[in-house]
Amino acid sequence: MKDHEADSRFCPVYTAAVELIGRRWTGAVVRMLLGGPARFGAISSAVPGLTDRMLSARLRELEEEGIVSRTVTPGRPVCIEYALTRKGADLARVVEVVADWGHAWLEAPNASST
Amino acid sequence: MKDHEADSRFCPVYTAAVELIGRRWTGAVVRMLLGGPARFGAISSAVPGLTDRMLSARLRELEEEGIVSRTVTPGRPVCIEYALTRKGADLARVVEVVADWGHAWLEAPNASST
Repeated sequence: MKDHEADSRFCPVYTAAVELIGRRWTGAVVRMLLGGPARFGAISSAVPGLTDRMLSARLRELEEEGIVSRTVTPGRPVCIEYALTRKGADLARVVEVVADWGHAWLEAPNASST
Repeated sequence: MKDHEADSRFCPVYTAAVELIGRRWTGAVVRMLLGGPARFGAISSAVPGLTDRMLSARLRELEEEGIVSRTVTPGRPVCIEYALTRKGADLARVVEVVADWGHAWLEAPNASST
C-alpha cells in the first residue's frame, strides 16, 4: 500500500464545504447569483427543473449558512431580492474551477448518470 | 433588477460537475485518493461515518464516471486497489479551492447544518 496518509487525511471542513456547494441545485443557484442580486422568480425561471418549493428550501438553507442575503423592499408589490454575501461571493473561484473541470471532462450533462 | 443574464445563464455542465463532486462522501473519497491509490479498507477506515455499503456504491459510481480505476492483483488474498484516473486527478484543483473556501468560511464542520 502506498503512503497516502499525509495528504489525504479526512478533512471535515473540506467535506462540509464540498457537500454544501454540491447539494442538489445549490451550486446552480450560487452560480446564478454571482451575476448579481435576483428576485425569486428570476432564479426560479433561470434554473430548469427547479421547483419553487425546492428553491425556497435552498434559499433558506443558504441564508442560514450566511451565503445568501435577502432584502425586502416595501412597495406594491413588495420586492424581495436575493444576493450573495461576502462568504457567498467568495465561492466564485470554486464555481470557476468546477466549471473548468466540467467543460474539460463531461461531454454532456447526462453523461454522468448511468 | 440587475442585468445578470450574461454571466449566470444556467450551465448544465457546471451543474452536473458540482453535484457530482458534492454528492455525499464523493468529495471525501476523491480527496483521499489524491494522496495515491488505496485499498477499500483503507478508504473505509479513513472516512469517519462512511459505511462499506455506501463506499461500494460511491466507488462504483466513480468508476462509471471514469474518475476512479480499480485494479485487481491476484494473490492471497486478492489485492484490489482504487486510484484516480486522469479525469479524477484533474479534480485536485477543485479539492484545493473548495478546501480553501471551507477553511476561510466554515468554522466547524457542523456549522453548516442547522
